[in-house]
Amino acid sequence: MKVIKFGGSSLASATQLEKVLNIVKSDPERRFVVVSAPGKRNDEDTKVTDALIKYYKHYTKGADVKADQEWIINRYQAMVDELGFKSTEMAKIAKSINDLATLPIEDNDFLYDTFLAAGEDNNAKLIAEYFRNNGIEARYVHPRQAGIFVSSEPGNARILPGAYDKLEELRESDEVLVIPGFFGVTPDNQICTFSRGGSDITGSIVAAGVKADLYENFTDVDGIFAAHPGVVHEPHSIPELTYKEMRELAYAGFSVLHDEALLPAYRGKIPLVIKNTNNPDHPGTRIILEHKGATVPVVGIASDDKFVSINMTKYLMNREVGFGRKVLQILEDLNIRWEHMPSGIDDLSIIIRERELTPIKEQEILSYLTRELGVDEVEIEHGLSILMIVGENMKDHIGVTATAAKALSEKHINLEMISQGSSEVSVMFVIETEQEKAAVRALYDAFFRSGD
Amino acid sequence: MKVIKFGGSSLASATQLEKVLNIVKSDPERRFVVVSAPGKRNDEDTKVTDALIKYYKHYTKGADVKADQEWIINRYQAMVDELGFKSTEMAKIAKSINDLATLPIEDNDFLYDTFLAAGEDNNAKLIAEYFRNNGIEARYVHPRQAGIFVSSEPGNARILPGAYDKLEELRESDEVLVIPGFFGVTPDNQICTFSRGGSDITGSIVAAGVKADLYENFTDVDGIFAAHPGVVHEPHSIPELTYKEMRELAYAGFSVLHDEALLPAYRGKIPLVIKNTNNPDHPGTRIILEHKGATVPVVGIASDDKFVSINMTKYLMNREVGFGRKVLQILEDLNIRWEHMPSGIDDLSIIIRERELTPIKEQEILSYLTRELGVDEVEIEHGLSILMIVGENMKDHIGVTATAAKALSEKHINLEMISQGSSEVSVMFVIETEQEKAAVRALYDAFFRSGD
Repeated sequence: MKVIKFGGSSLASATQLEKVLNIVKSDPERRFVVVSAPGKRNDEDTKVTDALIKYYKHYTKGADVKADQEWIINRYQAMVDELGFKSTEMAKIAKSINDLATLPIEDNDFLYDTFLAAGEDNNAKLIAEYFRNNGIEARYVHPRQAGIFVSSEPGNARILPGAYDKLEELRESDEVLVIPGFFGVTPDNQICTFSRGGSDITGSIVAAGVKADLYENFTDVDGIFAAHPGVVHEPHSIPELTYKEMRELAYAGFSVLHDEALLPAYRGKIPLVIKNTNNPDHPGTRIILEHKGATVPVVGIASDDKFVSINMTKYLMNREVGFGRKVLQILEDLNIRWEHMPSGIDDLSIIIRERELTPIKEQEILSYLTRELGVDEVEIEHGLSILMIVGENMKDHIGVTATAAKALSEKHINLEMISQGSSEVSVMFVIETEQEKAAVRALYDAFFRSGD
Repeated sequence: MKVIKFGGSSLASATQLEKVLNIVKSDPERRFVVVSAPGKRNDEDTKVTDALIKYYKHYTKGADVKADQEWIINRYQAMVDELGFKSTEMAKIAKSINDLATLPIEDNDFLYDTFLAAGEDNNAKLIAEYFRNNGIEARYVHPRQAGIFVSSEPGNARILPGAYDKLEELRESDEVLVIPGFFGVTPDNQICTFSRGGSDITGSIVAAGVKADLYENFTDVDGIFAAHPGVVHEPHSIPELTYKEMRELAYAGFSVLHDEALLPAYRGKIPLVIKNTNNPDHPGTRIILEHKGATVPVVGIASDDKFVSINMTKYLMNREVGFGRKVLQILEDLNIRWEHMPSGIDDLSIIIRERELTPIKEQEILSYLTRELGVDEVEIEHGLSILMIVGENMKDHIGVTATAAKALSEKHINLEMISQGSSEVSVMFVIETEQEKAAVRALYDAFFRSGD
């Protein structure tokens, strides 16, 4: 029993939908189909979701919305026409789009979410009908019927713990169920959307709910690359990743799946595969709980910029009980999230993301450290990048750090800081941002092009 | 103007005192001599300080103290006899030792300190007289006269900030001043001793007080070795160290000078040299504020065992504001001092010294982390050692980490954790204790025997 999710680019045109149809048909285990809203057909095109945002803005400003409604309805109609079937759903879709402009504007916290969700919702109706017209016994299911019950946090819904029991009942269905992604229903029966990566979250929740054997996430790439293709020339796609490795890669710049989307599947111990709608025979990247048997020590090289380091030294710092805790407390009081805290004996660095700081917060930190904690020296260093070597099997391979440090030193890249925790899932280096790309290439070559 | 301090082994016998005399005579800048109590003359001998501890115990228990008094007085008398001069001080020394047994026992927080301090105090009187009999205009100065005013914390005295003004007046003296180490005088005129490394502290305080050009600390070794001589065969003595480097080395097992002893000299920006009484022509190890000009990247390799790591993982840990601070708070509440906190994305390790933990504290930590902080996994790993490469100039040399990691990997030493702070004074590796010696040798060879 598999849950299969398609992103917007996989659902943008008739050509793409035919691929989707074939993918679903080719495996009778593919019983739950989670869909995004139609994406762009070409670079000049508009995503349905963006058109809905425009529609929302016009409506709430009291402007004319006729053109917005027509454009969106036509977008679905064009798909039906292209696919060449006679739709009975189109009337419902059109009504649903038009009815949005009858919802109350005042005191309606969920209005924006309801507009946005219409993109996925109507696409699911259309796709279920298309499937039925092409030999698949398919049925559209609204999240309310499915049991995707969420908290009342507009734009940031969270699944309610009780939801999974209701979701499990979907297993009983004999039909292929087509479920719109991106939103759930609150206890007050309001439409409420998830945060970034919303349809991925729905897929993950459904997979956990129906206790799927596999959650297939179809995108437009052959899985997850071992390094950023914008930096390394034609990097390979990683065959197998663990959830932990995925998290580490996502942290440092990899953005195929948003990590919150992974949580339900991870907690439900559901393996995940990322595949390419345009190249379905490619095995893609499989994401599992743990590697079975021997694999390579390093699975990927990630990097991310816009990091800042607050470096402080104080003679006899390490004899001062509570020093580090006080430093973290001031950050917490300023609502600053920190990332790492490498330390020497009398020095401590706090690495944070640039966006967490403002000039005023910087001043407050400096003043607190100097006046309250009496540090001898403190400086805030900007323009840093984090470089990560990721691989759970590093712990069974001695010499990974040596290989990495050698490769970086040969390219004259200075390691500002180094941190490797006991889990040995990753080794992290802090370097200057201007050396980031060269560093990623050096490490990719060292670990994956050793034939050189 | 130099402050010169001699340890107990440099003052144990007439032969040693003759060396001391020549060292002081050979440089007219050596104007302040800080002395310890007489040390052991041979392996079977008793230190005067230990004899004073026995004397104290007998006295406070009401036992007969005659034999204790005689042994101690004879110890000083034997020195005078050996040196072959006629002492007028010996009568005062004998009276001082005997008078200890007239001090009140009840409600006397400083009795133990007063007994102990007599070892240094009487030795200073004797040495000043010996100097005078051999052509040096020398004068014994009690800490009360010198101005070594300290807090009322028996066994753990701290210098009072006002003391330095009085100490500075000592500069005016034309004589060589002989000052007993190890103790000061409280505002209530009580004798109060410093903690470990007490005479080194006195030397450091006097050097800062008189604004000395140099603080010479004479011991029985040719300075500080670049690695432990019990591990590496005949390691070299380090010519030049910074205070920071010294602190890092002291942290991981080097114990030539206790780091609290360094603080007054460090704050006073006084350079320090560690020299050998038995080999005064050897330049020893010079400890300064910062290296001038180019030096080697690595000055020493240190290691220390009996470390424990608390390793925890929690999915999405790094999104949880305050997580690390809460972990440090529980340690602080249990009065546990932590050393380092290397982290991955969803994992965090806290490295602490074995002595900070008890089985009950371990249970409390595990229970708190699991129940209050909801970690997914937590384990406490024993039998770890810290390995440190120390050198302030590492930051100007790319490739130090690569050299170290390569040397360790060639000896099949697994790096459990790595941490390098932004100051780049040291790189720290956490390894298993059973690999510690092999690791130190591998690094010593890599950095100092590169001719191999």
